[in-house]
Amino acid sequence: MEINTYTKRFSSPLYLESGRILEPYEIAYETYGTPNADKSNVILICHALSGSHHVAGTYEGERKPGWWDGLIGDGKAIDTTKFYVISTNVIGSCFGSTGPMSPNYPSEAPYRLKFPVVTIKDMVRAQMQLLSHLGIYHLKAIVGGSMGGMQALQFAVDYPNLADHVISLASTYATRPWTIAFNKVAMEAIRRDPRFMDGNYEKDAFKEEGLDGLAIGRIAGHISYLSPESMDAKFGRNYVSNDGLFELFGRYEVERYMEYNTSNFSKYFDPLSYLYIIKAINTFNLSRGYDSLYEAILRIKANVHLISFSSDYLFFPGEMEHIARMMERNGQRYTYTEIDSNYGHDAFLVELEKFDFLIKKNLEED
Amino acid sequence: MEINTYTKRFSSPLYLESGRILEPYEIAYETYGTPNADKSNVILICHALSGSHHVAGTYEGERKPGWWDGLIGDGKAIDTTKFYVISTNVIGSCFGSTGPMSPNYPSEAPYRLKFPVVTIKDMVRAQMQLLSHLGIYHLKAIVGGSMGGMQALQFAVDYPNLADHVISLASTYATRPWTIAFNKVAMEAIRRDPRFMDGNYEKDAFKEEGLDGLAIGRIAGHISYLSPESMDAKFGRNYVSNDGLFELFGRYEVERYMEYNTSNFSKYFDPLSYLYIIKAINTFNLSRGYDSLYEAILRIKANVHLISFSSDYLFFPGEMEHIARMMERNGQRYTYTEIDSNYGHDAFLVELEKFDFLIKKNLEED
Repeated sequence: MEINTYTKRFSSPLYLESGRILEPYEIAYETYGTPNADKSNVILICHALSGSHHVAGTYEGERKPGWWDGLIGDGKAIDTTKFYVISTNVIGSCFGSTGPMSPNYPSEAPYRLKFPVVTIKDMVRAQMQLLSHLGIYHLKAIVGGSMGGMQALQFAVDYPNLADHVISLASTYATRPWTIAFNKVAMEAIRRDPRFMDGNYEKDAFKEEGLDGLAIGRIAGHISYLSPESMDAKFGRNYVSNDGLFELFGRYEVERYMEYNTSNFSKYFDPLSYLYIIKAINTFNLSRGYDSLYEAILRIKANVHLISFSSDYLFFPGEMEHIARMMERNGQRYTYTEIDSNYGHDAFLVELEKFDFLIKKNLEED
Repeated sequence: MEINTYTKRFSSPLYLESGRILEPYEIAYETYGTPNADKSNVILICHALSGSHHVAGTYEGERKPGWWDGLIGDGKAIDTTKFYVISTNVIGSCFGSTGPMSPNYPSEAPYRLKFPVVTIKDMVRAQMQLLSHLGIYHLKAIVGGSMGGMQALQFAVDYPNLADHVISLASTYATRPWTIAFNKVAMEAIRRDPRFMDGNYEKDAFKEEGLDGLAIGRIAGHISYLSPESMDAKFGRNYVSNDGLFELFGRYEVERYMEYNTSNFSKYFDPLSYLYIIKAINTFNLSRGYDSLYEAILRIKANVHLISFSSDYLFFPGEMEHIARMMERNGQRYTYTEIDSNYGHDAFLVELEKFDFLIKKNLEED
């Protein structure tokens, strides 16, 4: 499978939902496979909060493959011998697309907190610009989980003629206060960390010693990505060491996991980007800009495939089901599958074998 | 109803589960009503993480009554015209009983991080000392919710002949990694807050400006006390102000709630006490010291009343049900009730009308 990584710079303005303008802006993206002559085999993948455009394959010299590598590749469910897969980095991110640490043109200085609030709708609009630039006006499918699933649904509503199939996993129609509250931990922990300095930190300030605020916020995030059942199975009540029980800071396995993962994360993920992306998640509401959720969903022409996970404690199955019920009433084309899983929200990233065949099947249909 | 508040100082050692000794130690407690001649009308109330011995009535000059005032008082479910109610402050707390900011005898300096880890078993043992001191060797009932419910169950297992009834609400038989993970947010946020200074802060350092770390940890706590449904009902997706949507730090109602409650809390609750009490919650395991959970529960002679709440996302109904099933198999006396509620874990504090009649009925039995 051929991987190509690009960055496209746009000099035209991107009109944001807030009324503000992003200009110029860049979009980092990656492609796998080859487009056919009439470009009828293009699939767009949308990433989640901590993801990037590096969705499949392994970069030279690296060990870790892209975040959905199990799903995308030659002969895999999203088969790169058949499909031309494009994955873009969302605006606001810190992995190549324009974000809060990008230069605030015409100055060379980063935007920092002057970066405009971007929404899921804006992320989608930016991707539309890229598709136009690439001369792609029709997609076989758009696929994404969590925040990626929000983007997929937003595409389906805002651009009804774009895609044959829209596959949204572990997502929702509008972010509920429950999720906003989890994000609030990160928002406050980052803001109040003295080393955050109102966003005026040096570019690589946290490379060696990650920002505590981000690590702490990320612990709350990890709770919402797992489930009580998955934690029982993964960690139980085991201690890291025997003296864990009677030492105040003696750690349970679950605590070590949280420390290790979040401390690593806080070294490479930009805290300003984190703030802007969770804000985009918080403000996600498919009905915004339309008279109602019903009116928004009624616009959809794609065949929508909704996949939820029974133990998802971040976006509960009922939220996806709510969309399914509306589409059912409208006589729209859709499928809804609740996957039985103990892995919580993370299931869309780790239990691929439970749904990859569904995606494969969806893509075989017209 | 007469309220009396006392502090009893013990000069004898309290032997802790860790093998360490607390000596001397003090227990703050409050009583309501009057003991009858043979002291057969005594009810012990155990408090939760953020609670204190001030469970009922209103102090002179204050507006806010005790935390279970709706349940306890003259003519209420726990009727203080009939019962003599005692409520103690747990060791480790910051409301009068010996805790990490108490003098590390014979020095005058506070223990701070030298305070020994205390467990639910230790909290219960300390309360047994107080009961002995008061000449009370038998209780009509022990009642508590959340961490208070853990204490109630621990009493039932460790001191089988003590109480006629043990009423445990919104609790568990052993704290699961899910809850430990929520507590981990607070543990890391407090530890890493520069103003925490490894516990070497001045006694009233956070009176004016609360400790951020505690406030942040408490946001995670509040998530676990509520439920997605209660948040939907309470906050919806409303903004505090109209510009909330497109301002990075523009707040949803749920965010204002989190900020307001946690900032207040961080001004009056001692962060070291918070660390020690969440450690006690983390280490709670009814089976510790016994061969198995089965063996522990088999010891119980009291009539145990287990009350869970359908939307409790901290201690799930299944956890209480697990105890009930064991008692059922053993032919022990118990009742189990799952209250249908949207209020989440907090239901044991706010939806009193859904279970106060159950408690009243329990107390009318022998």
